[in-house]
Amino acid sequence: MTVAMLMTNTLLSAKRYLEKSHERKITPIPLALKEPVPSDIDIAMAQKPKKVKYIAQDLGLFESEYDLYGQYKAKIDPAVLERLKHRKDGKYVVVTGITPTPLGEGKSTTTMGLVQALGAHLNKIAFACVRQPSQGPTFGIKGGAAGGGYSQVIPMDEFNLHLTGDIHAITAANNLLAAAIDARMFHEATQSDNALFNRLCPAKNGVRKFSNVMKTRLEKLGITGTEPDDLTAEEKARFARLDIDPDTITWQRVLDTNDRFLRKITIGQNSTESGHERETGFDIAVASECMAVLALSTSLSDMRERLGRMVVASSRSGEPVTADDIGIGGALTVLMKDAIKPNLMQTLEGTPVFVHAGPFANIAHGNSSILADRIALKLAGVEEGEDDSSAGYVVTEAGFGADIGMEKFFDIKCRISGLVPNAVVLVATIKALKMHGGGPDVTPGKPLPDEYQNENLELLEKGCNNLAKHIENAKKFGISVIVAVNKFKTDTDAEIELVKRLSLSAGADDAVSCNHWAQGGLGAVDLANSVVKVCSNTPDFKFLYDVNSSIEQKIETIAKEMYGADGVSFSDLARQKVELYAKQGFDNLPICMAKTHLSLSHDPKLKGVPTGFTVPIRDIRASVGAGFLYPLVGTMQTMPGLPTRPCFYDVDLDPETGRVMGLF
Amino acid sequence: MTVAMLMTNTLLSAKRYLEKSHERKITPIPLALKEPVPSDIDIAMAQKPKKVKYIAQDLGLFESEYDLYGQYKAKIDPAVLERLKHRKDGKYVVVTGITPTPLGEGKSTTTMGLVQALGAHLNKIAFACVRQPSQGPTFGIKGGAAGGGYSQVIPMDEFNLHLTGDIHAITAANNLLAAAIDARMFHEATQSDNALFNRLCPAKNGVRKFSNVMKTRLEKLGITGTEPDDLTAEEKARFARLDIDPDTITWQRVLDTNDRFLRKITIGQNSTESGHERETGFDIAVASECMAVLALSTSLSDMRERLGRMVVASSRSGEPVTADDIGIGGALTVLMKDAIKPNLMQTLEGTPVFVHAGPFANIAHGNSSILADRIALKLAGVEEGEDDSSAGYVVTEAGFGADIGMEKFFDIKCRISGLVPNAVVLVATIKALKMHGGGPDVTPGKPLPDEYQNENLELLEKGCNNLAKHIENAKKFGISVIVAVNKFKTDTDAEIELVKRLSLSAGADDAVSCNHWAQGGLGAVDLANSVVKVCSNTPDFKFLYDVNSSIEQKIETIAKEMYGADGVSFSDLARQKVELYAKQGFDNLPICMAKTHLSLSHDPKLKGVPTGFTVPIRDIRASVGAGFLYPLVGTMQTMPGLPTRPCFYDVDLDPETGRVMGLF
Repeated sequence: MTVAMLMTNTLLSAKRYLEKSHERKITPIPLALKEPVPSDIDIAMAQKPKKVKYIAQDLGLFESEYDLYGQYKAKIDPAVLERLKHRKDGKYVVVTGITPTPLGEGKSTTTMGLVQALGAHLNKIAFACVRQPSQGPTFGIKGGAAGGGYSQVIPMDEFNLHLTGDIHAITAANNLLAAAIDARMFHEATQSDNALFNRLCPAKNGVRKFSNVMKTRLEKLGITGTEPDDLTAEEKARFARLDIDPDTITWQRVLDTNDRFLRKITIGQNSTESGHERETGFDIAVASECMAVLALSTSLSDMRERLGRMVVASSRSGEPVTADDIGIGGALTVLMKDAIKPNLMQTLEGTPVFVHAGPFANIAHGNSSILADRIALKLAGVEEGEDDSSAGYVVTEAGFGADIGMEKFFDIKCRISGLVPNAVVLVATIKALKMHGGGPDVTPGKPLPDEYQNENLELLEKGCNNLAKHIENAKKFGISVIVAVNKFKTDTDAEIELVKRLSLSAGADDAVSCNHWAQGGLGAVDLANSVVKVCSNTPDFKFLYDVNSSIEQKIETIAKEMYGADGVSFSDLARQKVELYAKQGFDNLPICMAKTHLSLSHDPKLKGVPTGFTVPIRDIRASVGAGFLYPLVGTMQTMPGLPTRPCFYDVDLDPETGRVMGLF
Repeated sequence: MTVAMLMTNTLLSAKRYLEKSHERKITPIPLALKEPVPSDIDIAMAQKPKKVKYIAQDLGLFESEYDLYGQYKAKIDPAVLERLKHRKDGKYVVVTGITPTPLGEGKSTTTMGLVQALGAHLNKIAFACVRQPSQGPTFGIKGGAAGGGYSQVIPMDEFNLHLTGDIHAITAANNLLAAAIDARMFHEATQSDNALFNRLCPAKNGVRKFSNVMKTRLEKLGITGTEPDDLTAEEKARFARLDIDPDTITWQRVLDTNDRFLRKITIGQNSTESGHERETGFDIAVASECMAVLALSTSLSDMRERLGRMVVASSRSGEPVTADDIGIGGALTVLMKDAIKPNLMQTLEGTPVFVHAGPFANIAHGNSSILADRIALKLAGVEEGEDDSSAGYVVTEAGFGADIGMEKFFDIKCRISGLVPNAVVLVATIKALKMHGGGPDVTPGKPLPDEYQNENLELLEKGCNNLAKHIENAKKFGISVIVAVNKFKTDTDAEIELVKRLSLSAGADDAVSCNHWAQGGLGAVDLANSVVKVCSNTPDFKFLYDVNSSIEQKIETIAKEMYGADGVSFSDLARQKVELYAKQGFDNLPICMAKTHLSLSHDPKLKGVPTGFTVPIRDIRASVGAGFLYPLVGTMQTMPGLPTRPCFYDVDLDPETGRVMGLF
């Protein structure tokens, strides 16, 4: 009897525990709006964030599923996906923008404003998923990525500094591999096949063993012997000698610092390296393929595979040399084992934000991580027996304009994740559209020309062509489009109405103006309502191209369909690469165009909707681990520099309060 | 009446809260000893650590005083020092060793064993304070710093990997400064004085302002104008032009990776740098002066000052150029604002361990941080009204042998901290002493020669001279010495008795054998009891030299008194540096000898107690921010390399459990 009662109680309490984990809510932090709107840092510092453990609890996360990193950051274990796999995903919204201009569109600000509206005003479970910014520019030329005004991620200093160390982990992994490449070439150059083999497989108590990662290489080489002593002399030589062709090394070192003097360097000049000099360079850390891998991994074991198959060079006989050939895939995974856990932070109104991964938006795909989106979609998902209307919203941001970030979001990120988005929010400002319509250039520090300060419907109407092209592009993927006009105080009602009207006639499903910069979530309630409405449609999602078509064909499809080009021209080098990748079996990877973001074309000077151009492909490179080929259109700067007066001059700690000063 | 009752209750509850914060205890984790002793990683993985928040609570820390970094690491806010300043410090013990041999002495293991004995067996509040190991060697040649056997820090993978990112923060700070130096020289080379000045002090809304850090430079230059427009053209030029002499730059870049190809490199070879090429190199991150600064800072504001006054080069007119001249001291502090908080971990038996800072032991002082020791001494301290016998113990470890680590501990670390140690624990092994007595060399992988496996009192007696010299050295500082004979199973009773007898006759206050490797804290109870007994003596601490004597004199004193040298010889370069530092006002800094640790002399081959030698000083460098001069005796390798088969070959994640495999 007592035992039965005890068991019933235990069951009841387990049931209640489970129910509690379903009861998800977002407890907003009230926002005291001021006019005029104070500086970003003043707003950020005035708002006391919730302790992140309360956010995690509100989301129904178990204590074992998150690790605190201080009071306001937590890492979420992807293992939660297994526990919540029965849930139906929440709604998936991607925020993108028109072709960027120096006047800005406010994509990050809109992302934050929208989730603040959904979470704190419409009482929905809502997540923003954004990239971690590089620390390099933080100390170079001002420009935060935390949003702005009353739509920001907080604490903004944590967001812009080390966060939880993910970029540092990527730097460590990238550079361990770089050091290993040069060290291996050095040791191969100075040792006989036999000595090399014996050093790689040293005898312990008289017995030689292959490590696990060596078995991957044996398999690749078609060597069937499983013990070192089984191998023939020829097999030993093939196994031990990677025979890297130094001219083919594509792996650079990285730092998360704007250090222009490292763009091109000569290494190995110490006498200990016996004259094995080589020209190479450093990129900014977020340009590392390890970062793209982090962003595109779907699980820990998937990341292990991707890191192992990254190609760093070719051998002299033209075979790709991978990280696992060097024996390092496992170590890279260990270095990145915590980096794979998405970082939970919050908006100014206490809405959860995942900050995770920050791959470059040109030589990589410029989107935050698949895992963060997936976890958010489950946490915002629909429990068994719940109504579909209880679904939450995951708002993820794609880098640069829609021709780049959105296209890569669909064709690379969604292709790998298998996730289907419900809506595109396309952000535009009246000012930026006027520039696309032919408005004059602006000079930093000088007052804005009249065209941007006063009503000018003519310029605006012309500029809306750029917006219309991006709407059309989004619709090619079968996804609904909402245009968000991010309002400035000089915008007139007539101007806003014009953009709305032209958006709808270009095929947008809705067009809404919003004022979240000045009002936080309150200013984006109309946008949020529109998102809720549009997301009830069933998406008819399709990719732009078949991944199994030829490399040239895929590039041509993107250039014609997205950019409006007449065609594509390939340099001799690019043609050679097409052949090489076909031979190496990498031709069925999706394409990640490394094109300027400042124009729909390849020429950054051409605003609006350029026509009559051919996109020149200078070179094609491969990120085999991440899983894409990236054609280079023009030259890409992968290491920024410091100006004469870097903004570090203003950065300090307040000796009284210990608070960071001068960071934006 | 009710109000009075309420107030009484509030007071009572406050009092109880306060009392609770005094009730400090260490709750041990039971250790199930096995025979034969399993591998380090098997022992570490078999023990489930306590959640670190419980350790923090047991130590009486308030929730606001620590930040969790996952379940098993926490950062402690140095602000706790203010709250506990009324407490009398606990007892302060430094662990050092005889001159290291390839056979090892087990300093780290003894540090862990001793605190396990004090904490888990003698029921004392006890802390180990150790350095954070560099990640470079973790993936290069095996060798953990977490102790060994049943005396270790756990979780050992966290300890050996990123920990809480302190070394990454140092890397970021070091490299931001490096990038700033080259960028500044580049901008100075391409701009007129006026353009440079105007860019450094840009007009905002028509008004130019100096940032705070610029005021430091104005003061240094003796310029009294407080607004940019006040300055004369000559003053503007002096202010804006650092005029760095490239040949005098001492600031290197760093990475926490063993990358030998970066030892000597040429930078600035990209066309964007217009031919401003320069030879330089990378060091391992722990060799950065920023690391030495972290280890020697006594508070956040002290760290700010030290980082700002780091000297990176001389101007063409011979003036030292500091980080604050470059405008970067505040930014470096912001990058290191979390790194300054000591990291709390635990031993296998749940004793608290502070892991904090890891400066190189030759070009820097090789000791963990002052702040960790200070906080530990307060947490283990004596509360008002408590008896002195309730004092806890802080056991801190000094790198290399006593001639290096201990000397620097006393003359540099204690000089800056003002702390007075109570005892030295000098670790020795029978095997290593035999090698000092003339025992044969050993070859890795081959069986140990008989001399080390069987009783050999003759060799041992000779070798004890090295031990005796270190005892004598320690006594010169007025501190009690306990010799800890770290037992191996082949050691005989007669051998141990001989070492004890010779130690006492050399002036040691006690000599004890211990077996913590095989038994954990239980094996070090005798040592712990000896420490308790010896620490009841009042130390008569004195420094080895007067910091205000000349540079040559200070070096000579160390060489003669510590190393037993006949004297010192200075190269021409070293003499020039003596003059330079005297001129620049840095001659009153303490001395940090960069000498081999493998001999009491400067020749690594000379074991035992060498005599009749003169120490050659090749060069003298300055770490002005950290606060010492470091004379170079011979060449120091500051960037390790990777062997043919780095240990990363064995490192991977177990796909089932997600656990790290193959890390030691």
